[in-house]
Amino acid sequence: MKQELYEKLDKRFSKMVEIRRYLHMHPELSFQEVNTAQYITDFYKQLNIPVRSGVGGNGVVARIKGGKPGPTVALRADFDALPIQDEKGVPYKSTVPGVMHACGHDGHTATLLVLAEILNEQRGELAGEIVLIHQHAEEYAPGGAFSMIQDGCLDGVDAIFGTHLWATEPTGVINYRVGPVMAAADRFEITIQGSGGHGAQPHKTKDSIVIASQFVVNLQQIVSRRVNPIDSAVVTVGNFEAKNAFNVIADSAKLIGTVRTFNEDIRDQIEQEIEKVLKGTCYTSDATYDYLFERGYPAVVNHKEETDLLVKVAKQVPGVTSVIETEPHMGGEDFAYYLKHVKGTFFFTGAKADHIENPYPHHHPRFDFDEKAMLIAAKTLADVTITYQNEHAKNSQTV
Amino acid sequence: MKQELYEKLDKRFSKMVEIRRYLHMHPELSFQEVNTAQYITDFYKQLNIPVRSGVGGNGVVARIKGGKPGPTVALRADFDALPIQDEKGVPYKSTVPGVMHACGHDGHTATLLVLAEILNEQRGELAGEIVLIHQHAEEYAPGGAFSMIQDGCLDGVDAIFGTHLWATEPTGVINYRVGPVMAAADRFEITIQGSGGHGAQPHKTKDSIVIASQFVVNLQQIVSRRVNPIDSAVVTVGNFEAKNAFNVIADSAKLIGTVRTFNEDIRDQIEQEIEKVLKGTCYTSDATYDYLFERGYPAVVNHKEETDLLVKVAKQVPGVTSVIETEPHMGGEDFAYYLKHVKGTFFFTGAKADHIENPYPHHHPRFDFDEKAMLIAAKTLADVTITYQNEHAKNSQTV
Amino acid sequence: MKQELYEKLDKRFSKMVEIRRYLHMHPELSFQEVNTAQYITDFYKQLNIPVRSGVGGNGVVARIKGGKPGPTVALRADFDALPIQDEKGVPYKSTVPGVMHACGHDGHTATLLVLAEILNEQRGELAGEIVLIHQHAEEYAPGGAFSMIQDGCLDGVDAIFGTHLWATEPTGVINYRVGPVMAAADRFEITIQGSGGHGAQPHKTKDSIVIASQFVVNLQQIVSRRVNPIDSAVVTVGNFEAKNAFNVIADSAKLIGTVRTFNEDIRDQIEQEIEKVLKGTCYTSDATYDYLFERGYPAVVNHKEETDLLVKVAKQVPGVTSVIETEPHMGGEDFAYYLKHVKGTFFFTGAKADHIENPYPHHHPRFDFDEKAMLIAAKTLADVTITYQNEHAKNSQTV
Amino acid sequence: MKQELYEKLDKRFSKMVEIRRYLHMHPELSFQEVNTAQYITDFYKQLNIPVRSGVGGNGVVARIKGGKPGPTVALRADFDALPIQDEKGVPYKSTVPGVMHACGHDGHTATLLVLAEILNEQRGELAGEIVLIHQHAEEYAPGGAFSMIQDGCLDGVDAIFGTHLWATEPTGVINYRVGPVMAAADRFEITIQGSGGHGAQPHKTKDSIVIASQFVVNLQQIVSRRVNPIDSAVVTVGNFEAKNAFNVIADSAKLIGTVRTFNEDIRDQIEQEIEKVLKGTCYTSDATYDYLFERGYPAVVNHKEETDLLVKVAKQVPGVTSVIETEPHMGGEDFAYYLKHVKGTFFFTGAKADHIENPYPHHHPRFDFDEKAMLIAAKTLADVTITYQNEHAKNSQTV
Repeated sequence: MKQELYEKLDKRFSKMVEIRRYLHMHPELSFQEVNTAQYITDFYKQLNIPVRSGVGGNGVVARIKGGKPGPTVALRADFDALPIQDEKGVPYKSTVPGVMHACGHDGHTATLLVLAEILNEQRGELAGEIVLIHQHAEEYAPGGAFSMIQDGCLDGVDAIFGTHLWATEPTGVINYRVGPVMAAADRFEITIQGSGGHGAQPHKTKDSIVIASQFVVNLQQIVSRRVNPIDSAVVTVGNFEAKNAFNVIADSAKLIGTVRTFNEDIRDQIEQEIEKVLKGTCYTSDATYDYLFERGYPAVVNHKEETDLLVKVAKQVPGVTSVIETEPHMGGEDFAYYLKHVKGTFFFTGAKADHIENPYPHHHPRFDFDEKAMLIAAKTLADVTITYQNEHAKNSQTV
Repeated sequence: MKQELYEKLDKRFSKMVEIRRYLHMHPELSFQEVNTAQYITDFYKQLNIPVRSGVGGNGVVARIKGGKPGPTVALRADFDALPIQDEKGVPYKSTVPGVMHACGHDGHTATLLVLAEILNEQRGELAGEIVLIHQHAEEYAPGGAFSMIQDGCLDGVDAIFGTHLWATEPTGVINYRVGPVMAAADRFEITIQGSGGHGAQPHKTKDSIVIASQFVVNLQQIVSRRVNPIDSAVVTVGNFEAKNAFNVIADSAKLIGTVRTFNEDIRDQIEQEIEKVLKGTCYTSDATYDYLFERGYPAVVNHKEETDLLVKVAKQVPGVTSVIETEPHMGGEDFAYYLKHVKGTFFFTGAKADHIENPYPHHHPRFDFDEKAMLIAAKTLADVTITYQNEHAKNSQTV
Repeated sequence: MKQELYEKLDKRFSKMVEIRRYLHMHPELSFQEVNTAQYITDFYKQLNIPVRSGVGGNGVVARIKGGKPGPTVALRADFDALPIQDEKGVPYKSTVPGVMHACGHDGHTATLLVLAEILNEQRGELAGEIVLIHQHAEEYAPGGAFSMIQDGCLDGVDAIFGTHLWATEPTGVINYRVGPVMAAADRFEITIQGSGGHGAQPHKTKDSIVIASQFVVNLQQIVSRRVNPIDSAVVTVGNFEAKNAFNVIADSAKLIGTVRTFNEDIRDQIEQEIEKVLKGTCYTSDATYDYLFERGYPAVVNHKEETDLLVKVAKQVPGVTSVIETEPHMGGEDFAYYLKHVKGTFFFTGAKADHIENPYPHHHPRFDFDEKAMLIAAKTLADVTITYQNEHAKNSQTV
Repeated sequence: MKQELYEKLDKRFSKMVEIRRYLHMHPELSFQEVNTAQYITDFYKQLNIPVRSGVGGNGVVARIKGGKPGPTVALRADFDALPIQDEKGVPYKSTVPGVMHACGHDGHTATLLVLAEILNEQRGELAGEIVLIHQHAEEYAPGGAFSMIQDGCLDGVDAIFGTHLWATEPTGVINYRVGPVMAAADRFEITIQGSGGHGAQPHKTKDSIVIASQFVVNLQQIVSRRVNPIDSAVVTVGNFEAKNAFNVIADSAKLIGTVRTFNEDIRDQIEQEIEKVLKGTCYTSDATYDYLFERGYPAVVNHKEETDLLVKVAKQVPGVTSVIETEPHMGGEDFAYYLKHVKGTFFFTGAKADHIENPYPHHHPRFDFDEKAMLIAAKTLADVTITYQNEHAKNSQTV
């Protein structure tokens, strides 16, 4: 069955490219992906594959029932774009000013659509059901995954697999990791309220810039002294604003930043430690503060069994040259939510063509990826799904 | 002679008020005081007092030659206004949107004009010459004093006196001080150039916000540890700007601030110490910096003999209820330049009416002052001038 | 063969305990372990096992040649004690005031001696040679491992295994880890030289306490901002000394601390970053510094193949209840040096008896361990050695 | 009368030197000056001058009643020595190991004794009474002044004068100042209690060294931002102790320091601000603290009338070459207490011989002073006393 599937995929690679480029030319921002959702829905409808749109927002979910009994496996592709102006000089460049598929979600979608088409053709041989989750709004918290789950996209699902095309790894590489692979990404916003005044009379004021600077300095101790050194954490203040005339002492200062962690306990700890440092620092100067901590996506934590399966399977996939354990990424992904509900794994599919030496990173105005990687992604997703279903179907039979 | 002068001033108080209110209604910003300068020039011309306009910019200088030999004494009044919207509810409110005499320079000018008119009438009795310096642009560095001096306004002058109406001291009070009475007021501008990046990858960046915060903290040591505790100094960062998305590490941060000192050595020292702290702090993170230190006005340093004379004389002036030594003010004044060229003193004339409990401070949109204080200012300036001339004329005769 | 070996070990457990307790009562400090070395040497001599003493200092190396061809495997046990006063109330308490086996090296030695005795009896069945490395001076840098290697203890060795009895893990647990398992442990010593003076005259001094405090604060940024958050690192200042009268400004301040890392690049980076922060901070105050960075043991980095073998084998060892991956420890071990020369793995053998709830940690004056763990350690070491030899002997035969 | 007094003083200069050198050879530490007190008491007894010993401790007070009515004037000399080893190579070097008159109190005492002898001889001409206060324990808080006042040494006194021989100012100079001339000198002691642990496990500790360093850094803001820049203040941490092994995180850190101020409000403010900064900084890390603030001597605040009198008089004293206003000194003096009870002034008598270029400072092991300065001190004290009495006697007569 796999051999036939590979051949079909190879034959329909040009279709995959065609879809990807169409999407690339028509990107839509997170939570505004109405046309893309319609495009996906229509695709399934034309194939008579049962599809539900408007899932948890703009999400689309299709289902393919296999001819044999077995577990239900979900595959996920996200389809939103970014508020970036496309600066590439290619024919399939974005046609929407200031909006661009600069992260490869167009590729994810094209991969999954064509794969679904073929799996549907071979559905008689499948041992179980396949759920195709087309997710909106991955780029912008609170994301689409959470609401799609609430709207039932994982109902009855036994395992989920997802991949990200990765333009800075060579095509042919599959990157996996058991356990935390992408960080929880939170946001905080702080206003330190001192008391302004004339720059020549500091004793009549509470100098917000000095207090806020002291806070930023004190903040460094959270990572350096309070988090277990074995664990990873980042606390970044990205924005510091206290705009005044040169001879005025700042009344207030505004800080905005992000926290990245892989471990929920440390995430909770840091949320509290920031306030502790803030409260103590303000106390030293009788200042007050506002503190807002907004949770973004949690960490993506891959399950061991499904990741081990992926590793075993991926090594056999045509086009895969190496299967490499990756360091965790500090960036965030709302695939995290799926893995909190069902077992599964999220992996990276290398998408840097050989002739590219210094690829533009994700979210860059000149970002692009090697389209051949879509084929590898499709084959790997198919393989791990089929193998999972067969192994678990067999197991259930023996029981 | 003084008695007659007092009486004349009392009689022409309404004229003084009239002039002041006219000027109050027609304020002009620093370096743009064309109409005000014309008004002053016309005033002298009508009296046939020799006057020179366009001195060092918009400055106006008139001269009254006394009937007897003696020293030349200069009196100075400034006449520019501020970029503040007048919010007072009075008939003489500013007619120019966003421009206001919020510091009393209108009063200084009215005082000096009416006083000059009377001194001119009594010029036969004067033992020496009087130079009436009407200075533009006191509020905005580099100010008018420096260029007026370069343009000769102090040529032949033996001593100078000046006063500031002070709306937060009761009318009747004269505030004096030997030595430094107003601070040197300088401005600095710093850009710290780190290297930006993704908020989750601090190790690939040089975090400008952390570096700049560290710098602000380190900066505190200049005043706390390096300046002689007997001397006064202020180093204020009034502006801290590093505006970015929450998940971005700041590429650069901009700081703007002010330095206040009374002593040229410490002024020089602080200019250098700031750079030392900046350079060292940037070095710790391989960051670079731009550092601009713009000298504003130097400190106003009153001369002992002239100040002592003022104190002695002021106690006898009708309307003066107390002559009080003041603490130095950390604010700046370009009267400083005159006192670097000739001897003299700069004092404060209380201008808070009895019924006002909480006067609006200088530079406030509702600032106003007790107009009776103009009379006291005029009499005190006249007295100290005449006494100075008589004493020095006598001296020169005895020689 | 294994079954026979297990039985022999069980039978001679009391001998193991006897040896351990004898050593426990006669501890010797690192680099002073003359009697212990003699004891070990005599043990082998009595058994006619070839033994070399004085290896790289007080080290002792014995060799058992197997009856069949195969690879050479080394087993290592350390035998030095600590400068701690034994405060336990047991009959086998240390008899040497202020010296104590507070880390279990007595157990390591007893385990290896009895195991060697038995392996020697069964040597005809061994497929290769076994090298028994009894190492002095593990507790105190530069340690004994390095000099023993230089003196040839690893010559001809194909793989090495070692274990640490771990009194805070339950007996029955084996803790393993591929890759870095114990940190590089370095030491730094810094003197900041300011310029002292009277506590009331900071401007005539360079306040070493303020500079050193600033340095400690700035130092936090190394871990929080400059080390890849995925990697682990600790920079600790353990000692801060600037002892003066209350009214004196400190002339100099002395800081001593430690750096822990798992990665040589980060180790190098931190050594340099500390100096960068130090140099910059001193520059801000015109102070000078001395900086000494002493490298301790490198990180213990386990090899994958040998660790996988250990895991496979350990699961079958009688008495082993669970084989658990451990987080890396930030503490140091000079077993690191062996693993830089030959492949192998270092693991932890749980040694907390069931009835102990809160065991005293290693290096505590009341430290003790469950002696039954020695049996498990011996069996696991024997098993992994025999399995390794058999697998590699087979392999070499097939070639 | 003054002329005769001058001549007598000149003639008995050798006696003054003799007494001074005797005292120099027999120094006694603060609160232990039993023999010195006896020496002084005996001196007065031999002259039949009424004397009371044991005043408020080791203090000695003599009284000379003038022949004419008038006010009572006190003169004060302190007589304790310092715990310093005399390293001078002179015949009159200290004979007591580790104890030395390194601040000139021997000179103060010799000056006052010989002056008293002469004033007693001329007592018939004195218009009022003279109280000779020989004070113990000036060098060591709580000092002798406070208890001597409580024991009545100022009863009936109208004014007090005192001087300090000043070895770094040329002989012939008198330094005066109206208002604050010497600072309040307080002492604080802080223990920051974190929670210690292994240097490799910061997350299990509260690192006292980091917290205390942060505190020292934060502390700088008190002087730089919270004290009126016009006022003087010093906050110095002179001692920072956290002594541990390099690989241990400090359990606690001890800081000792001093605060200097001239103004009681700022003194109170700083005592509170230190605790505020301490409490806030500890809060950021959940640490606790002990804070002890021990008040030393208050500021020496000279009265205007008496200081003006001194200036007028001193200019006429033979040997005085210049009378110069001095900057305030940040050092402390318990003469402060006398001036809180009665009017008076404390001045400095230059005591550096012409041929000395770089005099050793006070409290230096090689400290010495120009003995001729004692004559100038005696004449100035006598003059200001006699003039004060005459002027105030006259006044009281006219009333």
